[in-house]
Amino acid sequence: MDFLQIIDILGTIAFAVSGAFSAMEKKLDPFGVIILAFVTAIGGGTLRDILIGNLPVAWLRNDVTASVILAATLITLFFGHHVKQFTKTLFLFDAMGLGLFTIIGVEKGLAMHFSPGICIALGTITACFGGVIRDVLLNNVPLIFHKEIYASACILGAGIYLLLLHMHLPSDWVTIISILVIVVIRIVAMRYKLALPRFYEKNR
Amino acid sequence: MDFLQIIDILGTIAFAVSGAFSAMEKKLDPFGVIILAFVTAIGGGTLRDILIGNLPVAWLRNDVTASVILAATLITLFFGHHVKQFTKTLFLFDAMGLGLFTIIGVEKGLAMHFSPGICIALGTITACFGGVIRDVLLNNVPLIFHKEIYASACILGAGIYLLLLHMHLPSDWVTIISILVIVVIRIVAMRYKLALPRFYEKNR
Amino acid sequence: MDFLQIIDILGTIAFAVSGAFSAMEKKLDPFGVIILAFVTAIGGGTLRDILIGNLPVAWLRNDVTASVILAATLITLFFGHHVKQFTKTLFLFDAMGLGLFTIIGVEKGLAMHFSPGICIALGTITACFGGVIRDVLLNNVPLIFHKEIYASACILGAGIYLLLLHMHLPSDWVTIISILVIVVIRIVAMRYKLALPRFYEKNR
Repeated sequence: MDFLQIIDILGTIAFAVSGAFSAMEKKLDPFGVIILAFVTAIGGGTLRDILIGNLPVAWLRNDVTASVILAATLITLFFGHHVKQFTKTLFLFDAMGLGLFTIIGVEKGLAMHFSPGICIALGTITACFGGVIRDVLLNNVPLIFHKEIYASACILGAGIYLLLLHMHLPSDWVTIISILVIVVIRIVAMRYKLALPRFYEKNR
Repeated sequence: MDFLQIIDILGTIAFAVSGAFSAMEKKLDPFGVIILAFVTAIGGGTLRDILIGNLPVAWLRNDVTASVILAATLITLFFGHHVKQFTKTLFLFDAMGLGLFTIIGVEKGLAMHFSPGICIALGTITACFGGVIRDVLLNNVPLIFHKEIYASACILGAGIYLLLLHMHLPSDWVTIISILVIVVIRIVAMRYKLALPRFYEKNR
Repeated sequence: MDFLQIIDILGTIAFAVSGAFSAMEKKLDPFGVIILAFVTAIGGGTLRDILIGNLPVAWLRNDVTASVILAATLITLFFGHHVKQFTKTLFLFDAMGLGLFTIIGVEKGLAMHFSPGICIALGTITACFGGVIRDVLLNNVPLIFHKEIYASACILGAGIYLLLLHMHLPSDWVTIISILVIVVIRIVAMRYKLALPRFYEKNR
């Protein structure tokens, strides 16, 4: 089991927990919670695999991903009930998953020899579209379109990853540094309520 | 025309009618009704085919599916106006389609040698995600996430199907029994307003 | 660069601008505006390419599409602020994109030897589903389901295209005529607030 597989599983757990929390906050039934956990965890990677034609999508071909998500969701359902810890836990899991999945997406793009811009887009899709599908299913306007710096963190982290890789640093270190960049940006953005400026309004 | 093809067409009709009814209740224009009928009828199977890489998706390659849906929708538009019969008719069609599509999805998974758990998931996706896409397009939180036992019926029916098949019963009988299990669970669940417990709330 | 490629780029610009305008009206942040522009511009074509198995989808394999959308979106963000011109500009861009994309979709269907009905469906999906995904992401019931004649224009234009092609007219002229038919239908429909009748209501 190589390094990329390990961060894949960790990211899957993080996103499943985040999806389960969102569903529990909306008081869905346990089955709805499980579906939302799945969609959040595999939605971005599934969309990426469909777009690049990597079919059947990976989670169909082995039981590991589905088992991990199911276990993480059941644990969340039973032990995630300390309500006041929800917000912070949810946020930290989400930030980690965001960083992990971005890099996995960029990796897949590199493996298919896409251009740097497209690789960054694939990383961002992998990281963000699970959450987008989750929000659509919960009938919300996706958070990433109007909240704190989120996808922008992925874009920046993906860019730094490509840059450091281009400088021939050891790839495990490049991965860790890029993930940390994304996590730190998210923490800082949340802490100081940073959001992208909606600059076109100034022009009105 | 084998048995699997016949239940495919029956399920398609059932779901098209269910989708058309939902759209008519929201007073969409006739084109919107047709689209919703299509999406409900083929959405689950299309998502399944995309996930397993069975492309181009089946309904592009012959006219039968599209013609059947179009005919079913037009008949619904013109003759489905006895409003008070709507609810029960809609429900029965839906339950039948649910059973039929679950088994088709499991079959496809078995044909690709996926594990039992993944086959059950594919059956549930085939049966339920047309309705999920329908609800998303109509701007509702998908019914299956918070209503009576629905996807759970598919999961149980799919499990029974795999079990009976494993016991080497004749496959047509296994199909019929599993579909009936799903239909009966749906009827009982609706009749007695059964829902999955949202058990995590007790812990608060 | 052939004729089909040119109308592809023009349609992409038209839809990106339309998507960006919609997002700006909902006051999304600049990143949300860019995503909505992308989704509106490539959503329909991407869905079509996935359905027919044309993977990896075209816009991953070269940078032109993504660069064009990004440029169009940034220009819209900076210079699209003359609010009162929004509605009409948005409408005209949308009508042009609608016509252009319908014909591209029909072309792809013909290239795969699908039946005329399926080719018309693929044209309509290419033209309309970018807008459907845009509306779903913005948490609206898709416009095309309840507003003026929209998808119907695509269906008619696609039918005329197949008919004229069948009569062996020069294919560039057939393309231009069919696109104009769609644009003119849209303008007339908007001007006179034409909508499809919701005829099933009469029956109640």
